[in-house]
Amino acid sequence: MAIDHFSFEHHASCSHTKARAGTFHTPHGPVHTPRFMPVGTLANVKTVTPAQLYDTGAEMVLANTYHLHLQPGEDLIAAAGGLHKFMGWSGPMLTDSGGFQVFSLSKIRTIAEEGATFRSPRDGRIIHMPPEASIRIQNQLGADVIMAFDECPPYPADRDAVAAATQRTYRWLKRCIEAHQRTDQALFGIVQGGVHLDLRQAAAEQLVQLDLPGYAIGGVSVGEPPELIEKIVQATTPLLPPDKPRYLMGVGTYREMAQAIAAGMDLFDCVIPTRFARHGAALVQGERWNLKNNQFRRDLTPLDESCPCYTCKNFTRAYLCHLIHAHEILAYTLLSIHNITELIRFTQSIRKAILQNQFVEKFHEWLKPSKNNG
Amino acid sequence: MAIDHFSFEHHASCSHTKARAGTFHTPHGPVHTPRFMPVGTLANVKTVTPAQLYDTGAEMVLANTYHLHLQPGEDLIAAAGGLHKFMGWSGPMLTDSGGFQVFSLSKIRTIAEEGATFRSPRDGRIIHMPPEASIRIQNQLGADVIMAFDECPPYPADRDAVAAATQRTYRWLKRCIEAHQRTDQALFGIVQGGVHLDLRQAAAEQLVQLDLPGYAIGGVSVGEPPELIEKIVQATTPLLPPDKPRYLMGVGTYREMAQAIAAGMDLFDCVIPTRFARHGAALVQGERWNLKNNQFRRDLTPLDESCPCYTCKNFTRAYLCHLIHAHEILAYTLLSIHNITELIRFTQSIRKAILQNQFVEKFHEWLKPSKNNG
Repeated sequence: MAIDHFSFEHHASCSHTKARAGTFHTPHGPVHTPRFMPVGTLANVKTVTPAQLYDTGAEMVLANTYHLHLQPGEDLIAAAGGLHKFMGWSGPMLTDSGGFQVFSLSKIRTIAEEGATFRSPRDGRIIHMPPEASIRIQNQLGADVIMAFDECPPYPADRDAVAAATQRTYRWLKRCIEAHQRTDQALFGIVQGGVHLDLRQAAAEQLVQLDLPGYAIGGVSVGEPPELIEKIVQATTPLLPPDKPRYLMGVGTYREMAQAIAAGMDLFDCVIPTRFARHGAALVQGERWNLKNNQFRRDLTPLDESCPCYTCKNFTRAYLCHLIHAHEILAYTLLSIHNITELIRFTQSIRKAILQNQFVEKFHEWLKPSKNNG
Repeated sequence: MAIDHFSFEHHASCSHTKARAGTFHTPHGPVHTPRFMPVGTLANVKTVTPAQLYDTGAEMVLANTYHLHLQPGEDLIAAAGGLHKFMGWSGPMLTDSGGFQVFSLSKIRTIAEEGATFRSPRDGRIIHMPPEASIRIQNQLGADVIMAFDECPPYPADRDAVAAATQRTYRWLKRCIEAHQRTDQALFGIVQGGVHLDLRQAAAEQLVQLDLPGYAIGGVSVGEPPELIEKIVQATTPLLPPDKPRYLMGVGTYREMAQAIAAGMDLFDCVIPTRFARHGAALVQGERWNLKNNQFRRDLTPLDESCPCYTCKNFTRAYLCHLIHAHEILAYTLLSIHNITELIRFTQSIRKAILQNQFVEKFHEWLKPSKNNG
């Protein structure tokens, strides 16, 4: 199927790494890469309105096929005019296929060649989800980018099981391509292969033959040590076509993003900024601060003087500490706004550095191989 | 002490009622009356940012002396530059004295002529609060309007107890006036007297002699039937000076506000809009809707077509219903924005009707005496 609406424009590369700055064009606008994408699983980024989200610098927002299928259902969202209209976000969107979520239901699902079958944790009904169903649902949701339905092996898992899952993922991908109905949605393939670099490489080579509009590395950040993520990304990325966007799924710490960008990845997502916020924690220049701590009780400075976000421009650490101690929900909103802005700014500043050929110079601290998950 | 910063400008009266439209000038800007004021007890309006609050049409916001004394403490707020700066609200503010909250701690407080003594529900420490302390704290918080520390009798209570509390409130008021240190804060007196109209009238007459910059009716909405609130307001309001703002404390249903405005009251506050929001309920043109109900699951219209708020302009009833069912906190924010806008619009539309001399004509449904608490 011809894809008319998507292109990846390449602007600059870092002379010492494979890092690149580009623009991924979608029907709902451009995504300037490298870019962190906030997660809006259930058609909202937790505690943040779309208007607040625009101000963070967010360009592309994620939602989740599995969760939205269970509630409120793709029929309703299609009737509402699609996910963008339903949730009030007019920028680019991406839906994950639900593969990862279905396989996480380890005790209440079975997987066969035909597809996955699981018991809804919401109401107990049995749901059968072959790859075709995930694509049909994603066609109804209407995100700009949709993801193939993959089998995501856990970590640890034995090599044979990972190899079988990776091969099945490839067969399912071909069924996904067959099932996909909309030319205004780009279907990305997902490279699986666990921590086995040869399986990753073989999978990448197979996928690239299918000439998809974008590629993702999936099945990382499932419990393996951070240095293995780095190795997987370094081994896999060079095999993906340079003229297509590359998305590293579920990764969003500073170090993991910097390392992956150095390897040539473009897009990232992670629940960290909103999850940390709900635990009263802020991301500040590479660190995690627990705003509940007594040291912040009388600290009348902004979270980060250099941050342009609404929270930093209008409130102090002492105020955020007060809201958290008072169990005021507004704390979560203000911290989410800051944390999302922070991770987007981090990727924006890397982009700028790449364009100025200063990436390695400015980000060398993050580029050191490390066992630290920073 | 001379008050230089406060004046009440009278614009129009309704020819059939005592309703009036005016402007109350404060150091942080004007308040156009009649007006509903959102409640920000702990230095935030629950789930709503100041930027969102401006967009609701809010002019004056409340906070609470008792709660802020317990946490984070007036010293910190003073060090932050006062309540406005601390919470990021640059418009007019009012602090309630904490009298109502202290007297609500019925089992862990004692009241003597000197003042109230209570055990902090937060950390168990014993706190002594004479009227002078409430005023000192309010001087430190720095709201535009501060309230006298009053003794608020419960309902029901016997007449002698109410009379004694009312007289003590008057003696405490004189101590409050003596203790008050800032000319940029208007100290309002509070008329008590329970449901006894003669006690209310005597109290009002005493208070008016003190020539305060504003007056409040307190001790209503504490459990008595709504028709008694109407009677209290109707009997008391005419005794208050016409050139001073009049504030009916803790009242904010459509009917109660309309009735009180007809009697000549100007300012209202109530936790209803944010509390209803946290229960998944919306105020729509005079009704309370439970957005969790199945009837809204597939309803793709806005909450209220005629409402200009962010929620109504961007989201459907089905989306709000989805967020509530998914336990997404964003639902509370979106419903709070709408509910606050709704009650402010209600008082704004009454103001407009008074200015056009159409108040009785347009609001006759709300002006019928009623046992309904609508």
